[in-house]
This record gives sequence, structure tokens and C-alpha cells, in this order.
Amino acid sequence: MLYHDKRLQYPVRVETPDPVYARMLQQAIGGIEGEIRVCMQYFFQAWGNRAPSTKYRDMLLHTATEEMGHIEMLATAVAMNLETAPTELQETGAADGIVGAVMGGASARHTVEGMLHRHLLSTGMAAYPANSDGVPFDMSHIYASGNLAADMYCNVAAETTGRVLAVRLFNATTDAGMKDMWSFLIGRDTMHQQQWLAVIEELGGHHGTLPIPNSFPQSQENQEFNYSFFATGIDGAPPPPGRWTEGPALDGKGTFNVVQNRPLGQEPVLGPARPDSGAETQQIAP
Amino acid sequence: MLYHDKRLQYPVRVETPDPVYARMLQQAIGGIEGEIRVCMQYFFQAWGNRAPSTKYRDMLLHTATEEMGHIEMLATAVAMNLETAPTELQETGAADGIVGAVMGGASARHTVEGMLHRHLLSTGMAAYPANSDGVPFDMSHIYASGNLAADMYCNVAAETTGRVLAVRLFNATTDAGMKDMWSFLIGRDTMHQQQWLAVIEELGGHHGTLPIPNSFPQSQENQEFNYSFFATGIDGAPPPPGRWTEGPALDGKGTFNVVQNRPLGQEPVLGPARPDSGAETQQIAP
Amino acid sequence: MLYHDKRLQYPVRVETPDPVYARMLQQAIGGIEGEIRVCMQYFFQAWGNRAPSTKYRDMLLHTATEEMGHIEMLATAVAMNLETAPTELQETGAADGIVGAVMGGASARHTVEGMLHRHLLSTGMAAYPANSDGVPFDMSHIYASGNLAADMYCNVAAETTGRVLAVRLFNATTDAGMKDMWSFLIGRDTMHQQQWLAVIEELGGHHGTLPIPNSFPQSQENQEFNYSFFATGIDGAPPPPGRWTEGPALDGKGTFNVVQNRPLGQEPVLGPARPDSGAETQQIAP
Amino acid sequence: MLYHDKRLQYPVRVETPDPVYARMLQQAIGGIEGEIRVCMQYFFQAWGNRAPSTKYRDMLLHTATEEMGHIEMLATAVAMNLETAPTELQETGAADGIVGAVMGGASARHTVEGMLHRHLLSTGMAAYPANSDGVPFDMSHIYASGNLAADMYCNVAAETTGRVLAVRLFNATTDAGMKDMWSFLIGRDTMHQQQWLAVIEELGGHHGTLPIPNSFPQSQENQEFNYSFFATGIDGAPPPPGRWTEGPALDGKGTFNVVQNRPLGQEPVLGPARPDSGAETQQIAP
Amino acid sequence: MLYHDKRLQYPVRVETPDPVYARMLQQAIGGIEGEIRVCMQYFFQAWGNRAPSTKYRDMLLHTATEEMGHIEMLATAVAMNLETAPTELQETGAADGIVGAVMGGASARHTVEGMLHRHLLSTGMAAYPANSDGVPFDMSHIYASGNLAADMYCNVAAETTGRVLAVRLFNATTDAGMKDMWSFLIGRDTMHQQQWLAVIEELGGHHGTLPIPNSFPQSQENQEFNYSFFATGIDGAPPPPGRWTEGPALDGKGTFNVVQNRPLGQEPVLGPARPDSGAETQQIAP
Amino acid sequence: MLYHDKRLQYPVRVETPDPVYARMLQQAIGGIEGEIRVCMQYFFQAWGNRAPSTKYRDMLLHTATEEMGHIEMLATAVAMNLETAPTELQETGAADGIVGAVMGGASARHTVEGMLHRHLLSTGMAAYPANSDGVPFDMSHIYASGNLAADMYCNVAAETTGRVLAVRLFNATTDAGMKDMWSFLIGRDTMHQQQWLAVIEELGGHHGTLPIPNSFPQSQENQEFNYSFFATGIDGAPPPPGRWTEGPALDGKGTFNVVQNRPLGQEPVLGPARPDSGAETQQIAP
Repeated sequence: MLYHDKRLQYPVRVETPDPVYARMLQQAIGGIEGEIRVCMQYFFQAWGNRAPSTKYRDMLLHTATEEMGHIEMLATAVAMNLETAPTELQETGAADGIVGAVMGGASARHTVEGMLHRHLLSTGMAAYPANSDGVPFDMSHIYASGNLAADMYCNVAAETTGRVLAVRLFNATTDAGMKDMWSFLIGRDTMHQQQWLAVIEELGGHHGTLPIPNSFPQSQENQEFNYSFFATGIDGAPPPPGRWTEGPALDGKGTFNVVQNRPLGQEPVLGPARPDSGAETQQIAP
Repeated sequence: MLYHDKRLQYPVRVETPDPVYARMLQQAIGGIEGEIRVCMQYFFQAWGNRAPSTKYRDMLLHTATEEMGHIEMLATAVAMNLETAPTELQETGAADGIVGAVMGGASARHTVEGMLHRHLLSTGMAAYPANSDGVPFDMSHIYASGNLAADMYCNVAAETTGRVLAVRLFNATTDAGMKDMWSFLIGRDTMHQQQWLAVIEELGGHHGTLPIPNSFPQSQENQEFNYSFFATGIDGAPPPPGRWTEGPALDGKGTFNVVQNRPLGQEPVLGPARPDSGAETQQIAP
Repeated sequence: MLYHDKRLQYPVRVETPDPVYARMLQQAIGGIEGEIRVCMQYFFQAWGNRAPSTKYRDMLLHTATEEMGHIEMLATAVAMNLETAPTELQETGAADGIVGAVMGGASARHTVEGMLHRHLLSTGMAAYPANSDGVPFDMSHIYASGNLAADMYCNVAAETTGRVLAVRLFNATTDAGMKDMWSFLIGRDTMHQQQWLAVIEELGGHHGTLPIPNSFPQSQENQEFNYSFFATGIDGAPPPPGRWTEGPALDGKGTFNVVQNRPLGQEPVLGPARPDSGAETQQIAP
Repeated sequence: MLYHDKRLQYPVRVETPDPVYARMLQQAIGGIEGEIRVCMQYFFQAWGNRAPSTKYRDMLLHTATEEMGHIEMLATAVAMNLETAPTELQETGAADGIVGAVMGGASARHTVEGMLHRHLLSTGMAAYPANSDGVPFDMSHIYASGNLAADMYCNVAAETTGRVLAVRLFNATTDAGMKDMWSFLIGRDTMHQQQWLAVIEELGGHHGTLPIPNSFPQSQENQEFNYSFFATGIDGAPPPPGRWTEGPALDGKGTFNVVQNRPLGQEPVLGPARPDSGAETQQIAP
Repeated sequence: MLYHDKRLQYPVRVETPDPVYARMLQQAIGGIEGEIRVCMQYFFQAWGNRAPSTKYRDMLLHTATEEMGHIEMLATAVAMNLETAPTELQETGAADGIVGAVMGGASARHTVEGMLHRHLLSTGMAAYPANSDGVPFDMSHIYASGNLAADMYCNVAAETTGRVLAVRLFNATTDAGMKDMWSFLIGRDTMHQQQWLAVIEELGGHHGTLPIPNSFPQSQENQEFNYSFFATGIDGAPPPPGRWTEGPALDGKGTFNVVQNRPLGQEPVLGPARPDSGAETQQIAP
Repeated sequence: MLYHDKRLQYPVRVETPDPVYARMLQQAIGGIEGEIRVCMQYFFQAWGNRAPSTKYRDMLLHTATEEMGHIEMLATAVAMNLETAPTELQETGAADGIVGAVMGGASARHTVEGMLHRHLLSTGMAAYPANSDGVPFDMSHIYASGNLAADMYCNVAAETTGRVLAVRLFNATTDAGMKDMWSFLIGRDTMHQQQWLAVIEELGGHHGTLPIPNSFPQSQENQEFNYSFFATGIDGAPPPPGRWTEGPALDGKGTFNVVQNRPLGQEPVLGPARPDSGAETQQIAP
């Protein structure tokens, strides 16, 4: 269970509110690279964790709880960036100088066009759990597979795309307050990338974890093509050589080679439709 | 651009059609761990690849093209498993022995209940791009961030959750044809896990890629907490020690430590609502 | 604007309530082939109709209004089929004979498993706007393009897949009341298929409408390949001959021929990423 | 920001694990009446709260934080109900007695059919943020309008549909552990219904809050029909009398009456399409 | 079943077409606070209504039917606001003065950027069932629980958020025609808020309806915490006093008090994964 | 299975990159009228094809494969249009002349506002599988019904709305490279419209295919109303005469007539709710 403190994990300051930057920030709240995703992903991984010890469950709870505070910081940042946003389409909003002055000459209308309209229409100038296009976050992005190593890579994927997004949001603004907030959050992403990869290392690295799941006996998988790069070019030319085309596999359990893809299977023929299946009569055997 | 061969990459055989297994197979087509996802993810990563050379773009095209053939194999397997499925709810379907015999005594009604109803109602006994709950695949799961290393981890995430799913589908069936198909596909997942991790190694491993994106100067991120594990437990007790709580960071650029999470920021106070913003008067400053 | 009559357009009777058939019926309410879709599609086409006369707007309003009554019939049929559904998982439901007797021996538990759980948990035994898998209807399936001929074909697509579904639902049940309801609705689908195709005929048939939109001068489209079937087989063998491989085109404005697909374009090379774009340094030009 | 305790808010016990009940429980996690919804709704309302004092922001944070613990309880309950679930489709699962014994004779296959397949295939027998049909929770259900009174009614809607669901889940099971958990959660829903209605009372009840938003001068709304019940029956007969058809309005600011709906507006005629708009030539003015 | 009149319920006039306002209007069509939602919600509540009399079913049908006319009005308003919208990106659109003049100097390009692109690309300048961000309406927002009182509060939630939106749209425009239309619709929202609350009053108010569902014996819910406000603050300080922290409960069936939240439950430990469940070997008991 | 060629099917050139046009192009990738839809629709129709011969399966594979190349062309076009897009919100982007010059004076900020923000934030200036509003493509739009004629009309619907979109995108740009690309793709849409209609002709045209599915004996559908146009106007006035109101039906199997819609069915009365169903006591029979 959880407890709260009314204060933020890290200060959120906005020197020059910008409703269009508020829109951008939404990607870090409700985007697939955003904070709702990591928060909920870590919680669901923790709650479903099956293992001899609770060590990884515990670790996940610590970080999931931290991430909830990041959603809060970003939601606060969105609301602050909407402080001076216009509430109507016509130029009168600019006439009083509020937006016009702030945006370096951009008119109220201009700003409305670049805003998320739901910030104006649906939330009363506050954040909502959607991305920068206004697409609501969809919980199918909570990856929790029941396989610890797979989940760690899902978390690395989340934190790397998350830090890429954070860097872009840092670059997109010149507001010192926002840059300071991002400096902190980018630092946290640095740690979280490490953290999930450290679990992989603790589990024995590539040799100890691959192929994931390592509980399936490799004797039951196809042994002919399980370390082969399949080339699918029309001309049959070999692909450019890389770490994955020759030499020992990363898990030390095979040797890379290159194979030209070709059909080993049949042309699938399903045959006529059944008379009672809603097909056209032309599809049914005469 | 693409070309096709009418034959399958690998043989698809079903000895005893099972409409409920057809449902399960849908997860490998339209699930988030499925083949549509990897196919489209690799294509979009290839098409958007920005780099000094086309090496990784080329590699991605080879494998994306292969994955399209996997969707085809699975769609064929679904249709074959639906060959003897009932088309009505009542027991008459079982009376003619088709389903009853096949399913080891399960009645037609029983089978209809366990099927995806849209296999019966919407497709004429064929696959559709949805998961085993019938939820259509949503293209927001195509991760292509523009950062090569982040994308590789997204691909590892896809192939590890994918192989976990494949193993579960292998275990769930006793059909020799289906087991053979999965043996091949599980082998391919083994290779693909290696392949994306091999790119990371080629880019210099943890040191060469982390923190992702490595083009952002770490001097601009918060230096105090970027290698700290934040403990969020109510009792302030330290979390269980792990690779991520002490010692050098994986990227060799920092040292892990543990910090008790505490508010560094303020209580955010947004203040009263504006009179024209659709709030209650009680929210507006008197 | 609309008016209502409390009575149904056509009688809805259920002789033997069947909660699993209630599930199937949902496909005709909230499925992509269902009645919400056609109702809303015709309304939106009417409301956005731009043309010299209101003739087609008027026609669309007549039929859209009728379709609303079909949703009502089906929602009523769902509720009636849920009349005797169990409210708990254990066998006690069967013990009182309600479900057990009705379902020909199927236990309460068996029935619960085959039901849509939200019929039991969320609606109090009534219909909801989702398909037979419980996936809510998504209004992106309302096709209204602003092009009259294109919209007519969208409507034909809706009514043909709709009648296919209706036939499958007719076949799936043995309940005389349900069969009578479907007999009526299938008849209406017959008419509606005709109706939209009759508009095409009124507009001049293939010659008068194709290529859609016919307001775009064909002189501005590529003249070399606009009546060519592109073969994409790896072996270069010609595809099986059909009406579309030779002879005059259906619109009388071209002649069909077959062309082997081959690249006319370049290998696209996007070049290195920009330094400030969140890419890895390895993607950035040295 | 948040803190966590590893223990649950209230004990979760399962005497007889039932994978189909695990499915039902998902509705209370990822359904629109579920706990993710209320948790996130209260957080977003708190984070966006604009008012002269922080009183309601504070209250919302207390309860949002509590709700997170309810998600945790339910996720734990799901995992516990999946403890003995089968991992394969055939009867061998029952042969070892695990499921067969537990389910009172239901075969493994039977149970697999009634389960959410993603519990078996995607999560390793754990909860995921989807409803009982497997439809992922969609954050568009987080209602936070920026109007305090409107938000309170959204919360009442959430807690009343939530308690209805909880009661149904209580009724559906005979497991003493599960019934005890629901007894607690139903009690909490009782309080939460009160809590949001108490805010309405504190704001002055119907008179003090209606019409919402009360900051819009009613002199600017249509005064002729703002307390009229519009009858839309085809026969023009008056609707059944009720509290809303005559007498003083609830807010004391008007008097109810009944009006027969009739068109006050025009037939909308949009006129021909523009030549460059992709319409058919037949839609374009000659 | 339904009938239609070609005329609108209330006149829709647009003096100065504004394509960006057309975008805003979409929120009132396909937003969660919009007219499709209330129309369909009232219809589904009516169609599934189970009660000793048809009184509330009848009332719901009257109002659902009226709401369909509101969708029509708004769809017409969108089309009218798109009358002069540009069809291309470059400045030539402004050159002919159509948009430039109308928009007070805004260029065609400027306007295209602020429009919903699908108004230009997908509909031929007409409405579609999506919100102001272009997100299609999703029918999961049709709340119809089978509990009359819960449904009434869902309807209040819809009409209060709906009127808040309407007021914001009234404020956002200076067009006299649009303001007149909103004046009417805001008035109707006033009535509809009253109407659903009047049902609550008719059912006996708080005492007669709470806790919802009132058919569940409160003796079966936890009696210790069902009128307690749980405080979750880290510092254990009591929350600010309010109507909900002391005194008699609104339903007269309990007394409010405040409780510090603390774990009553256990630390949940799921134990090791099964060998055949796709986990890593490290998760499986040795 | 598939093979690839690194080169494009047709050249893609962009003379003046325009990030807002990149947004528009997304509709042709991930819109419901776009290329992902047709590609996947034809593949799934092929993979599920049930018929005495593989003729139509073969044809579908040829064209599905071609369409994959169209997605590639458009994804390339998006990336090229984003070449000079700004990466930050402030005017400094314009100061270096990159965007300002290109866009004819539009500032960097202006351009950012009109872009899809995810092009800037999520993809590193590349395409993603979403429409021009940023809504991800949802695979429920893959229509494959198992009825050949119904599927052909679904394909016609896709290619007609697709060509309407293509024409609008042609009209929206003045870039010669983009116009040349569209000229090719519009030509291909011309052919594909023909192709699917040619299958209908080969199957016997209206007489040979209607009503779809033609395998259902029309003797089992209602014979009284299956060629009747139902008028639903409140005034009972007949609808405007058209091809569908009198004369022989298109399929030669009936005669059109007009019928005034009227209730043939009952007022549906569901009766009281069950005591254990979560209803209010007022809904339950006394």
C-alpha cells in the first residue's frame, strides 16, 4: 500500500508559461515512452512476481513508487505552462497582452491552434493522461510477462525510449525551470537504464539469461536455424557482415551463420468453404 | 519493395484441429508479443533509419521481411485449427461426430464457448489481426524511436516476450504438427534475441551505448542522483542489496549508491480558477 | 431531429434464453459489421452531404433512422437471452434447475464461462455497445468520405458483411423467435445492399463513377500503369488470367494488362541524424 | 510524491483458487468501474485542482493514494486465483488432479476455455491492466474536468458503478477469503460514495452548485426551455409525470414543465461540393 | 423505433466560418463529454431497463431521442464552419482572399495547421465522430450499469461535464450564430442535470438510494471502516476537516470518522514459478 | 513468404521539405483509407481464402505484396519532408534560416505547432503507423469476412476512399516531387478499384453475387420487405423517387417498392430486476 507527501520529489518551476510546451509535456505523461507506463509497468511486474525470493519484487516496488512522483511532477508542469493560455479563439486574448507578450509576439489564436484543444476545452488548463497528440494512454503498453529477464529488457526499452524523449523535451525548451526539471528526470532515467541491466548481469549476463526463457530446453527448438541470419534480399546477395553473421553467439551456445531464406513449407490450400458458413456459393465445392 | 512466394517459410501441419488452440494462436499474430508487431516494428525502424551508413537499415529489412512470413504461417495454422469447428450453438454439431470425436468428448457447444466468437461470426473460420482475447492489434506498439540503441532494446523486449509466448504455446498443445512449427519459430526467436544484442555489442556494449541517448552530454543531467537507487519504503529501511546498489555502474561512468527518497520540491499550489474557465464559482477567487 | 415510438419495428421473441447466444448477438450490435455502425455511418453521410440537391441526404436520413430501430431490436434480444443467466460461478445456480434445464444440461459454471462476463458484471444482464469479444465499438469505423460514390461502396461493404454476419447468427441458433427476427433483418439487408448499388447505377454505373473520385482529371495520374495488374511473384511467372488481366477496363477508359513489378525508384538513404535529435552518437556524422 | 509499504491494506486470502474468478476480478482492476480508474482519476483531479484553498486537492490525494492499494489487493487476488491454473489444453492437466479436484470436476480444458487466455499466455499467471474481457484499460476514462462539482459527480458515478460491480463479484463467489476481501472493499465504496456527495453538500447542495458550471450567468442561456422536459414520442402523448415534469426545479431557479419537441430550426442544406475537394463530379455544381 | 424530421431542433447559423472552431466543436460531438455519448448512454439504459414499471425506460427514450437531434445540430455546425476552409497548404489559398479575409489576416497555411487535418483529408469538410484531437469516440464510455441510481449519477456526470464543455465553447467564439446555438444547448443541459437528480429525489434521495446498490445488505459489508476517511499522508497528520470527516453520514446510516491508513494485510508472496510456465530458471524453485 | 529489394517501387522526391505535409502524409500510411490497411487486408483475405481454386488467393497475394511497397514509399516521403524540421519551440530555429526560408516565412514555432509533435518527440523525424491526427492504426479495420464478394466490396471501399484521399493530398501540395509520387499512386488506385469490381463481374455481376451471401436461401428471409424502401419521415410523405423505389431490383430477384415504417413489434418490457443482481431495491419486484 502507499502513502503520500504533498510536496514534489523535485522542484517544478516554469519561468515563461507556454501552452504549446504543455502539449509536448503530455508525451512524457501519457505517451508510450512516458511515466504512467513505467510506473504501472513496474507495479504490475512487482505484483505478479513469482520467484524463490522477494528481492526483485521489492526492488520493483521501490522504483514504481518513485515513478508515480514523476507523473505528478509532469502534471504540475503542464498546469503551470497553461497558466496564461487563452480561452478564446479571437485576437482579443492577445489584446490584453497576456499571451502575446509571453510568446514573443505569437497571437492568442496562434497559440490556441498549437495547443491541445482539450487543455482548453476538457480539463480547465490541466494535464490529462494522453500523449502530445491527445491520444489517451492505453494500458496494453504495460509489459509484464512473468519472465524476469524479458521484463527487465521491457524496462530497458521503456527507460531508453523514455530518456530519448526527455532529451528531446530538454532540447525543445529554453525555459530554465523546465530545463532544471528535465536535468533531474534525465539523471533518473540514466540510473533506471542501469538498474534493469544490472539485474541481467546479476542473473549471469547473456550466458545466464539467453535464450529467454532459458527454462525451455534448447534441444526442443530447431537446431538448424537457431543461430542463422536469414537473408531475404531478392538478389540473393549476402547481407553486410556484422557481429551477428559469424562467430560465436552472444550466449556462447551456438555459432552465427547466414542462410538465404527459401520456402521449406508448402503452398497452403484451405479448400472450399462449407455450405453453412456464410460464403458465396462460388466458394463452396460444387 | 517486396516479392512473394506462395509457399510457406516452414511447413505448417495440424494433426487434430482444435478451435480453442486457434484462439490461443491469435496471441502470436495480433498480441503485443506477436508477429505483426515485430514485422512492422522492424520495417518502420528501417524506413526511418538515419545513420552514416545503411548497414543497420539493410539488416532490419532482411529480418522484417522474414517476419512477414511468420504472420503467414500463423494465419495458416489458425485456419487449419478451425477446419472442423462448429457453426452452431446446439448439440447437433456434436451429433455428427465431427467435433465431439476430435475434441475427446468435448461437445460442440463446449467448443463454441471456448472459441473466439469472431472466428465463427466474422471471418469464416480464419485468422484476424487480434490477440487471443479478440482485441485488435493497435499500431501504437510499433516502437521506432530514431535512436538505434533504444530501438535495439525495444527489439530485444519484443523477441524475449515473443519467445516466452512461443514456449507457452508449445507447451499448451500436444499436436505434433503444431509442436514442429513452434520448434522452428522458437529457434528463430533465439537468433533474433542474439541479433539485436549483437548490435549493442558492435556499438561498444554498455560503455559505448549508455546512457541512451549517448549524444546528450551527461554534464547537463543532474549529477547528484544519476547513479542512485531511490528507496521509497515507508520505514526508511534500505532495499535489499543488488548489483545496482553499490559498485561501479555498468557503463563505467558512475558509482551506484542508495538514497532515501524525500521531497526536494514544493507543494504545488495552482491557485484559483479563472472566471471564464468553466469552473464553479467556489473555485474562483472572491 | 428524431421522434420515437415505444414499440419495436419487428417482434423480438426468445423461446429459450441462451446467455451464450446473447454474446453472439453483441457482434451485430457493436461489431464492425453491426447496426451501430450502419446507423451512425448513414447519419454522418447525410449530415455532411454536399451536392446540388438534397436527394441523397434525404434517402440517407430515412435509412439511418430505420437502422436505429435495429439496434433497439438487438439490444432487446440480448436482454431477453440473458433472462435466466446465472449470477454466480458455482454449481448452485444449476441446482435450482434454471439454467441447467434450459441449456440442455449445461451447468451454470459452464454457461458463465461462455458468457461475456460483462453481461454478468457490468450491465445487469443487458446489452452494451461492444462486439462478441467484448471489444467496445470504435467510431473510427464510421466511413463518410465526402465522396458520394465512395460512400456508397462503403455502405455496400457494411451491408454485405452485415448480411454475412446475420446469416451466421441465423444458422447458429435453433430458437424459433430468434430465427424469425433474423429472417426480417436479413431481408432488410438484402434491400439495403440493393439500395446503395442502385445509387451507383443512377450515377451512371462504372462508366459514370469510376475512377472514384471522377472529378480528378485522369490526365494527371500516371498513364502507364493505371490499368496494369502488377505481378509480385518471386519467380516472375504471370498470375492466373482473370477479368482484370486483359481486355477493356470496367470503366471503358483503359485496357487491362499485366506488368512484372520491379523497382523504378531509388534506394532511400536518409543520411546521418542531427546532433540534437536524441540519436546515438554512432548515428551522427563524424 | 509517494512511499510504499510491502504489506497490503487488507488481507487477501483465497481458499480455493479459481482461474475463472481470476478473470472476473480483472473487471475490478481494468474495467471502467475498476480501481485503476478511480486511483488515476483522483490523482489527476488533485494535480489539476485550481481553487482558492488546497483543501480539496489534499482530500483527493489521500483517497487516490488509498485506491492504489486497492489495485494491489486485486492484482494479488488474481495471481492467487491462478495458482493452480492449467498450462495446457489437453486433459492431462486434469489427470494430475490439480485443477479437476479444485474445480469440483471441471476439466483442465474446460477451465482453460473459461480463463482469460492472456493469463495463461502473456502474464505467467498474474493480473494485467485489462477488464474481464481482456480489453486493456483506456485512460480516456479518467474524468477530470477542472470543475469541482462536475468532478465530484464523476467520482460518485465511479464509486456507484464500482460498488455495483463489487457486489456482483461478492455474489459470484463462494470463497470465504474472497468474500472477506470484498466485504472490506464494498465498505470502502460506501464511504467514498458519501465523501464526494459530502463535497456537494459543503458547496451548498443543489442550490449552491447547479447548474454546473454555476459561474456561467444563466441570463446567457436560453430561458424558454432550460427547465422543460422535451417529449419526443411520435404520438405527442405526454410522458409519465415525475418529479421533473412539474413543480420547482431542484436548484430553486426555475419551474419544470413539459414541451412537445418540434423543429425550431431549418433543413440544413450544405450545397454543392467544391471542384477540388475529392467529390464526384455529380456532387459539384454544373 | 424512430422517425425523423429533416429540420433541426433549433436553428444553426454561422456568421463567419472558422475551421479551427470546427475542430473545437468536434469535442461536443465525439468527446467523452459530447452528444454521441449521452444519446447512446440514454438509449442503452432504456433498452436494458429492468424495473417493476416502464416509467424510467419511457423517460430515457424521450431524452435519448432528443439528444440525437443535438448531434445533428453540431454536425451541421461543423460543416458550416468548414465552408471556406483551404484545401491546400501553400499561401495561394489566402491569395484569393477567402480565408485570409475571414480569419482576420490568418493565412491559409496558418488555418490548415490549426484545423483537424481529417476535416480536409478524410471527410470533404464535414463532421466525423471524433473529439477535438481527432480521437474517435469509443463506445466504452456508454455507462449503463443495470442499477438505476448509479446510472442516474453517470448521467449527471455526463451532463455536468457536458455543460462545462458547452460553456467553454460558448466563451471561445465571438460568432453570434454559434453563441445562439450554444445558448439553447446550455439551457438543455441545465434541464438534463435537473432531470437525473430528480430521479434520485423521487427514489428517496440520499437515504433512499445510498449506498448504491441499496439491495446489498450492509450487514455483509465491513462495518468498521464503511464511514471512515482514510488518511494516507506520510506524516500521519489528520486531513483538513470537512463534511466527510465527522458527523452523521449523508445516508443517515453511519457516522463519519477519520482513520490513519495502515496495513492490515500481509506482504503477498507468490512463491516460485512453475517449470512449464515460460519463466527464467532463476525464478523456479531449485 | 516474402523477399525484398532495397529500392523503391517508384521514385520518391521532395523538393521542399514541409513538416506539415509530413503530417498530412501520415493519413495515407496509418489512416483508415491508408496503405497499411489495404496491405494487411489483402494479406488476411488471401491467408483465409476458402474456395475450390486458389485463383483469388493468388491474386490477393500479388497485390498485397505491392501495397507493402506503397507503405515504404510513403514512410520515405514522410522522413524526407521532415529533413529540415525544427527541434525546438523558440524562434532560434528560424534565425538560422533553415525553416524560415523553406516555409516562405513561417517561423520555426509556427511549424512546430502544425507538425505532429510525435514526429519531433517520438520518432526522430520519421514516419510512424498513425494517421494525420496521430491516432495509431487499429487493425480492426482489416476487413476479411470469409465471403469473397463481401470482401471485394470492402476492397472497393478501401480503394475508393483511398483514391479520394490521394487526390486530396495531390491537391494540397505544390511540391513537384510529391505530385509525381501521387500521380503514380493515384494511377495504382485506379487499377485496384477496377480489379476488385472485375472479380464481382467474373462472379456473375449483381445477378451472380447478390444478395450477399448468395448461399443463404432467400426463401428463409422475410419475403414481404426484402425489396422495400422504408420511409421513416415523421410526416409520412414518400421519399424522393430513385432507382431504389420502383422497378426491378438490381439482382433481378425482386421488385422495389416503398413502405412507410411502422411498429410491427411490441413494446419490450423486461420486468423487475433480480434481487442478487446489483440493482436498486426500487427496481426489484416487491
